[in-house]
Amino acid sequence: MRDQTRLRQPLSLVIGLLAIGVVAWLAACRTGSEAPTPSRVAPGDTDGVIAARGLTPDDVYAAVKTYMPTGRKDDYVMFASGGHSGQVFVIGVPSMRLLKEIGVFTPEPWQGWGYSNETRAVLDGGKVRGKSINWGDTHHPALSETAGDYDGRFLFINDKAQSRVAVIDLRDFETKQILNNPLATSDHGGTMVTPDTEWVIEGGQYAAPLGTAYASIEDYDAEYRGLVTFWKFDRGAGRIDPARSFAIELPPYWQDLCDAGKLVSDGWVFCNSFNTERATGGIEDDNPPFEAGASQRDMDYMHVIDLKKAAQLVTDGKAESIEGFQVLSLEVLNENGVLYFLPEPKSPHGVDMTPDGRYMVVSGKLDPHVTVYDFEKVKTAIAAKTFTGKDDYGVPIIDFDAVLEAQVEVGLGPLHTQFDNQGYAYTSLFLDSAVARWSLGGASGELNPEPDWTLVQKTPVHYNVGHLVAAEGDTVSPDGEYLVALNKWSIDRFLTVGPLHPQNFQLLDIGGSGETMKLLYDMPIGNGEPHYVQMIKADKLNVWEVYPEVGWDPIHQKKSENAVALGEEKIVRDGNNVEIFMTAIRSHFNPERVKIKKGDHVVWHITNVENAKDATHGFALPAYDINLSLEPGEATTLEFDADTDGVFTYYCSEFCSALHLEMAGYFLVQP
Amino acid sequence: MRDQTRLRQPLSLVIGLLAIGVVAWLAACRTGSEAPTPSRVAPGDTDGVIAARGLTPDDVYAAVKTYMPTGRKDDYVMFASGGHSGQVFVIGVPSMRLLKEIGVFTPEPWQGWGYSNETRAVLDGGKVRGKSINWGDTHHPALSETAGDYDGRFLFINDKAQSRVAVIDLRDFETKQILNNPLATSDHGGTMVTPDTEWVIEGGQYAAPLGTAYASIEDYDAEYRGLVTFWKFDRGAGRIDPARSFAIELPPYWQDLCDAGKLVSDGWVFCNSFNTERATGGIEDDNPPFEAGASQRDMDYMHVIDLKKAAQLVTDGKAESIEGFQVLSLEVLNENGVLYFLPEPKSPHGVDMTPDGRYMVVSGKLDPHVTVYDFEKVKTAIAAKTFTGKDDYGVPIIDFDAVLEAQVEVGLGPLHTQFDNQGYAYTSLFLDSAVARWSLGGASGELNPEPDWTLVQKTPVHYNVGHLVAAEGDTVSPDGEYLVALNKWSIDRFLTVGPLHPQNFQLLDIGGSGETMKLLYDMPIGNGEPHYVQMIKADKLNVWEVYPEVGWDPIHQKKSENAVALGEEKIVRDGNNVEIFMTAIRSHFNPERVKIKKGDHVVWHITNVENAKDATHGFALPAYDINLSLEPGEATTLEFDADTDGVFTYYCSEFCSALHLEMAGYFLVQP
Repeated sequence: MRDQTRLRQPLSLVIGLLAIGVVAWLAACRTGSEAPTPSRVAPGDTDGVIAARGLTPDDVYAAVKTYMPTGRKDDYVMFASGGHSGQVFVIGVPSMRLLKEIGVFTPEPWQGWGYSNETRAVLDGGKVRGKSINWGDTHHPALSETAGDYDGRFLFINDKAQSRVAVIDLRDFETKQILNNPLATSDHGGTMVTPDTEWVIEGGQYAAPLGTAYASIEDYDAEYRGLVTFWKFDRGAGRIDPARSFAIELPPYWQDLCDAGKLVSDGWVFCNSFNTERATGGIEDDNPPFEAGASQRDMDYMHVIDLKKAAQLVTDGKAESIEGFQVLSLEVLNENGVLYFLPEPKSPHGVDMTPDGRYMVVSGKLDPHVTVYDFEKVKTAIAAKTFTGKDDYGVPIIDFDAVLEAQVEVGLGPLHTQFDNQGYAYTSLFLDSAVARWSLGGASGELNPEPDWTLVQKTPVHYNVGHLVAAEGDTVSPDGEYLVALNKWSIDRFLTVGPLHPQNFQLLDIGGSGETMKLLYDMPIGNGEPHYVQMIKADKLNVWEVYPEVGWDPIHQKKSENAVALGEEKIVRDGNNVEIFMTAIRSHFNPERVKIKKGDHVVWHITNVENAKDATHGFALPAYDINLSLEPGEATTLEFDADTDGVFTYYCSEFCSALHLEMAGYFLVQP
Repeated sequence: MRDQTRLRQPLSLVIGLLAIGVVAWLAACRTGSEAPTPSRVAPGDTDGVIAARGLTPDDVYAAVKTYMPTGRKDDYVMFASGGHSGQVFVIGVPSMRLLKEIGVFTPEPWQGWGYSNETRAVLDGGKVRGKSINWGDTHHPALSETAGDYDGRFLFINDKAQSRVAVIDLRDFETKQILNNPLATSDHGGTMVTPDTEWVIEGGQYAAPLGTAYASIEDYDAEYRGLVTFWKFDRGAGRIDPARSFAIELPPYWQDLCDAGKLVSDGWVFCNSFNTERATGGIEDDNPPFEAGASQRDMDYMHVIDLKKAAQLVTDGKAESIEGFQVLSLEVLNENGVLYFLPEPKSPHGVDMTPDGRYMVVSGKLDPHVTVYDFEKVKTAIAAKTFTGKDDYGVPIIDFDAVLEAQVEVGLGPLHTQFDNQGYAYTSLFLDSAVARWSLGGASGELNPEPDWTLVQKTPVHYNVGHLVAAEGDTVSPDGEYLVALNKWSIDRFLTVGPLHPQNFQLLDIGGSGETMKLLYDMPIGNGEPHYVQMIKADKLNVWEVYPEVGWDPIHQKKSENAVALGEEKIVRDGNNVEIFMTAIRSHFNPERVKIKKGDHVVWHITNVENAKDATHGFALPAYDINLSLEPGEATTLEFDADTDGVFTYYCSEFCSALHLEMAGYFLVQP
């Protein structure tokens, strides 16, 4: 069907780069050889265990640095996207323990996520072209910020596969809202927030006609478009307001990650793009495959966006409506000086603002440098129109040399950059399987008093690192201390668990001087493929241990209209409609018998009337595909048609008491 | 609706017992107070970290005992049911790291579980009364055994909510078969296996009419029945054979956990039951709630089943067919001496055979003792008909005193028992929140030379322990070394992650003498509520790192008929039927454009033609609710009606290479 030789060039390129990476690992990393078999060591004999297990002094250091005695709480919390699991993972640092998986785009029965009316409504807020979608590809979690610092109140996350965004309330770690972007069918570089969380930024990915219209791929240049969307967040309501949100039309490049300006660059947004070649694939027709076609040019375009001006244009009525969503056209952007392009090295995969908001750091993944731009120079260049021309869509191109601050050679396959409190930056190197630590010219810290734009150190990681995260690393005041490398491949690091290997989160100690960056811990991730993570100081979170009131509706965070109090249990029949008002308490449901007829429409309200911490009850209804999780105080409703007759037993599915197995009732559906 | 005072007795009973438990924790457990804030310690300064973090010598011992340097492999693997998550969790010991979540009863997009034709067919093997069910309540994993020892080949797991069983192949850690028990709507005490895995045992739970027939709850005694099912496992096929499986009809008690006899008791099976009171609930009608009604009698009945004789009766054609499933009626059981009842203390929740197959250990959860029966005496009693009478369904009741070996007072709320290689048994105490270590009379070990039936020690755990597991603790030759307490509540052990708290798996060091049983590690479980676990020595597993051949069908473990080789990619149209033959390789799909018309029926074959370890590709198809995971070599097929027109981009959803983002193609659906 195709000419095999066509592919040799791009394939061999990648394989060659990978081979270099493998050699680098073998040279640099510790061997993962098996430990000596431990002989019996008396309990409590620490030195005996160290000897028997063959632990090195570095191992013992790492062990005591990361071990959490019972009841001791972690210092930091990571919120990791779960990748195509569709969920968010909550991980404690430094112990690297998975504290929770939050159901977001994928129904999850342990949490009852997607089984009640309330949670199903949240999921169906993200219907795509009228259809329920039951998975997502979560990519970039963003913690809400106040004045550029994480405030611990909300978490935002996107679904790359369907161009959706979700809002999670960090009082109860549950998803409250899912929205589908009606203009797009994929995103990648989302979500990011502006320093006061006024806007949640959703970057783009694969160009397509805006909205639901069909257009032939032959009309790519004319009909396909890129997109960046700015969702307006209403902090008081805890919801995104689609009516006040807008998108900007972009050329059909593949927009990727964005970062919001802060401090001196507040009000601006910077987004990567790749495939400015506008390759449309077609390997089956002897066209270059995307991997080659999208890698031809030495430079792609960073999109420099004046968000404040864009928002004002929307307020001024300059947006048009597509699928009911406000869009600023390229024409309006160009007329009003909202959008500028800045050349950036080959197929970039990260743009990260330094904590002071002064510099944009870009990693062209097919270029061994990080490239640093000075935002002050960018402002000057825009004011002076220091442009080298316009692209095919009329967007001014800023002169690269006029705004470049530095280029630092860090290694092969640089992807993303994070920052600490010592004037260091950390860049992940996918092909080198390493983390590069380099210093920011002009920045400084106690341990880094006279920094220049210089590579300081590289530490191998295992293997194929994508993103990385430092403690509070996206804020105006990073903490340093810890850095986690999100390695995509684990290969030989863990016991084999089948051909689908876990990912490997590796914790690095960056609390010390520039000479050391010790590997502390390998955490397998075997329930998803996290893409990005943010790490917040644990004491910034203010989480509810139980709901504030019995009868609580967690979606709307208030007392539910359908709450059932003790003594108010009842079953009400109105023709074929049966409404059940039930309570749950250790260790029984009331009522314990529900008798209906096949064909009845059932509305079932259940309230967990307890307020003791951890006294959760489950509600499993066999044959009806229903399981709920009722946290203490929670009130919920489910609704279904009784289409299957028989004798079924609903029961508490969360082990609640010594008499938990007795917490059950009969659901009797007469034929 | 009901008289509140009716409930005071059972509720106050439970609350009182819980209060005792709380006092026991406060007295016995270490405080979970916060650590001193660490000052900056130079990297590598181990003593400095110990001092700054305030670690005790016990903490340091636990840290070096459990820490895994990079690349070091765990010694044991635990397979944990994921409770109402519907999945199985794979956990390394002693590091307590989650290595994988295996998709079983719940669709899981990261693994592509439930999205391809092949995996959807496995899930739909478990349809309930004709309906797809997309969750399960996994309870008791059972590793396959050879001569009573784990052989590392298969794992079985049940779904309590829908009375289903699943088979997982441990070569690739994927689910291969799900079956619905057509006779029942719930089970609990499943799965367990016989010593050579000829039978997979599924215990019962809530009594109901056998099969799909409806019967009024007023006819409970006459029409409702209990059940234990014996699924025939075909090791060569790697499948359960429903046609050769059978169930035994039982009185309408609530059957629970079973354990298979071994060595001297080989061929027999022992199952708990509770609610021999035949309470039918009805708190709403002023009946006693189940928690009280099912707790009236001092004794329930262990079911002693002659499995060999039962199987022979089935072979001899004595079974009747209900819903196409073979059932031995109570009449046949009684006529042929297959079933005996043995009184067991109040509402038992565990029967566990000692490793030598000689003793059955039962914990009545409302009785502070473990009760030990001698199987030799049981055999003698049956032969001599040392019965005290029959129950209402004609089953002979063995004289309790004639077969009792010992009763050991262990504490409040005893549930389950495990064994080590030193002649010790370990019983979980739900209400005490503790693990009791006691010695088995007659058994012995290096560290336990003269055992009697005696309580040795109790260690507090945090909190409300359900099951517990020791290394190879269900086999004829347990290992000792490690024990894990599966605590249902964590309360204050971890950072708060909302009103739904994680569970807490606590690792205990049982490798030493009877005087110590040190707490080593707290592992939060925040993605399900595991019910039971088995722990196998890691070197017994023989897992594939990649599939044996490119073009592999993992469900049938052979080369797929639909495998697509490089160069054989094509798109075939036949009227409205479109068949796509696609390959995936770093870093492109072929074809990269798929053009169809709305209304077409699409059959899409994809093969990952790589054989490099960890080179997995994903396949995301926006708007069509599809995500696949294609492990190296894997071939799969998906099928759907193209009901949504537009321009969509399929892409690789598993980060595979530096050009992963370019691994995409356009799916063009013309209106």
